[in-house]
Amino acid sequence: MGEVQAKGKLAQDASRQLWKLTTKDKNNALALIADQLLSDQAAIIEQNKLDLVNGEKAGLSASVLDRIMLNEKRIADMAMAIRQLIELQDPIGATLEEIKKDNGLLILKKTVPIGVMGMIYEARPNVTIDAATLSIKTGNAIILRGSSSAASSNMALVRSIHEALKKSALPVDAVQLIEDTSRETAKELFHLTEYLDVLIPRGGKNLIDTVVKEASVPVIETGAGNCHLFIDESADKEMALNISLNGKTQRPSVCNALETILIHKNWYEKFGQELLQALTAQGVEIYGDETVTTDFASSHAATEEDWYTEYSALKISVKVVEDINEAITHINKYGTRHSEAILTEVTENAEAFLLSVDAAAVYHNASTRFTDGFEFGYGAEIGISTQKLHARGPMGLNALTSSKYYIYGNGQIRK
Amino acid sequence: MGEVQAKGKLAQDASRQLWKLTTKDKNNALALIADQLLSDQAAIIEQNKLDLVNGEKAGLSASVLDRIMLNEKRIADMAMAIRQLIELQDPIGATLEEIKKDNGLLILKKTVPIGVMGMIYEARPNVTIDAATLSIKTGNAIILRGSSSAASSNMALVRSIHEALKKSALPVDAVQLIEDTSRETAKELFHLTEYLDVLIPRGGKNLIDTVVKEASVPVIETGAGNCHLFIDESADKEMALNISLNGKTQRPSVCNALETILIHKNWYEKFGQELLQALTAQGVEIYGDETVTTDFASSHAATEEDWYTEYSALKISVKVVEDINEAITHINKYGTRHSEAILTEVTENAEAFLLSVDAAAVYHNASTRFTDGFEFGYGAEIGISTQKLHARGPMGLNALTSSKYYIYGNGQIRK
Repeated sequence: MGEVQAKGKLAQDASRQLWKLTTKDKNNALALIADQLLSDQAAIIEQNKLDLVNGEKAGLSASVLDRIMLNEKRIADMAMAIRQLIELQDPIGATLEEIKKDNGLLILKKTVPIGVMGMIYEARPNVTIDAATLSIKTGNAIILRGSSSAASSNMALVRSIHEALKKSALPVDAVQLIEDTSRETAKELFHLTEYLDVLIPRGGKNLIDTVVKEASVPVIETGAGNCHLFIDESADKEMALNISLNGKTQRPSVCNALETILIHKNWYEKFGQELLQALTAQGVEIYGDETVTTDFASSHAATEEDWYTEYSALKISVKVVEDINEAITHINKYGTRHSEAILTEVTENAEAFLLSVDAAAVYHNASTRFTDGFEFGYGAEIGISTQKLHARGPMGLNALTSSKYYIYGNGQIRK
Repeated sequence: MGEVQAKGKLAQDASRQLWKLTTKDKNNALALIADQLLSDQAAIIEQNKLDLVNGEKAGLSASVLDRIMLNEKRIADMAMAIRQLIELQDPIGATLEEIKKDNGLLILKKTVPIGVMGMIYEARPNVTIDAATLSIKTGNAIILRGSSSAASSNMALVRSIHEALKKSALPVDAVQLIEDTSRETAKELFHLTEYLDVLIPRGGKNLIDTVVKEASVPVIETGAGNCHLFIDESADKEMALNISLNGKTQRPSVCNALETILIHKNWYEKFGQELLQALTAQGVEIYGDETVTTDFASSHAATEEDWYTEYSALKISVKVVEDINEAITHINKYGTRHSEAILTEVTENAEAFLLSVDAAAVYHNASTRFTDGFEFGYGAEIGISTQKLHARGPMGLNALTSSKYYIYGNGQIRK
């Protein structure tokens, strides 16, 4: 039996122990993990250095190396995030429905853990801690498959988790790390239907596309965000400038950042130049349609590919549209169903846009940057789902639960 | 563009119109479909005869031919089911969460249609009407891919649906039938990620396994039910006899029927023979473990394969176990996570069983035959999910919805 199969079996066995544990058991284990990370800080940083040295040799970019890097502050932040997680309500065991039948049957639909979750992710070792602790909080076992670029860091972090779990009421096997980071183990995870109840990819578009295409286990698709802002004819000028700049420049690398601005032709005529200048002044490169490139000398011509592109950088595509319908059609064609916004003073236009645009989060007169589990008040986030089943949009603890029907009788049979 | 791609696009375009329609629009369309089916009755039965004649030539069994057969009564039943569906509450547009942020943002999480559903199914033409009308009620467009054995019947039924939709406010393209029933079109549906939001297989184990294994679109797994009854030491004898017979013989072909009985050794010693005789008297063949085959002459020896088997017939496997833990372990190993029951007078044992058995529905002192959308009071059922994401157990109208965050601001940006 290979590593993936063996650890899958261990995780499933552990998950069946987790169902029986109390909120206190789980929170106690989380507190032990937070303590352990702090006391193992030096060892973790040492192992992280190995990844950084290897990464430099392999020619990884400064931004990727930064994502891999762990220091005292970042480990302290992990521990603090765990302490915040402890404070959140346990979503397991809640009664979702209560049905009493005439024949005396009582049917309760209650939240239960999903079982065994798989997480496949790139670079960032903090995902190891995030995913493991969110799993524990929700009574799930987890199989972690990080990337080779953070292999030593991930092993050190999981060693600390295991040390902490040994002192807790939880089975140590609740958290499994696949140490072999070859492509083969990823593929095995894709088809681990016997042990895996869900697989969540966290990373770039290529990773997510591969998982969605190849996996036979259920997948929650996360991440890709080609987000649009539509500035309607009646939009307030100051608001449009503020929200455009906030959407694009406040943190360009994240999935809820703006990638395309669609502008009503009449608004564009009045304020278009001012908006383009404001963006350019902040270092944003403009990829425009014909109207924009004709009017605005420093802009590049947008290709068909640009409308599909999540730049994740200080670049934006800009298109002038006839009306709201053209904007909606464009977004439903090129968007990734993540976050989409309209700026308008006309209520009916806002309503039509929110109803007709197919996305997890639709905004009237606000920045798309708010699509986030913490901003929504969930206190935690495992990712942002861009699919429509199970969970859509920011996934908090509830997204890591399933349900089960408990039926109580006294001998009832079906007539 | 092939048939599947073309109809996928039409369905997606239609689905975006459905989002705007009212409950009244949808119910009106459903009433028109019910009327149309009754007035097209003769033509539908004529087309159904072609399928029956072809089926006989192809040597289909009497039970499969019965599933394909439509007559006046069955068409009247379809119309009646549609009228009951009209009475059910529209699940679309409900507010699931309301979040007010300090910065003035109002976040509403509301139910929305999933978008475009695909249904791939065998034989029964009534699934065509079921699936199409449940989709319309929930504002979804649907792509139907039935089997060649019911091709003429399905075409006749969809013709009636289209006639009815022409008179309604709904787009006719909301219901698409793939007329080419070759394997190729099934495979195209598996990968129609651009247009399909979910694919639901309805049929035998082979069909479901193939869809789960091959599809890159999100799938809801339904159906397989290898259901167990555990008779604990303290179980009431009469109750055990009643529930065993009900579970196995009341309708052996359905997924919530019993397939295995696990008996505590002490109960078996006292009442085992009586139970086995009662089953045999009802024509049930017993596949037993060594204890059973030694004691009960007319029983067959169960193979390892038997414990995994959903007989869907008057056959049952029987095993004598040491205690409740052996029963739980057996069920979690061989079960399909559908419906599992314990009979016991000891509350702690009932609680341990319900908590530790991994299934959509777990029963204390009642028959597994109750796992059903109508029995649970949902008024409709699209299938019984045996997976843990999105929907688990009987799927009513709510299982055909997704959610969307509507965010209302007045210029808020992320700090």
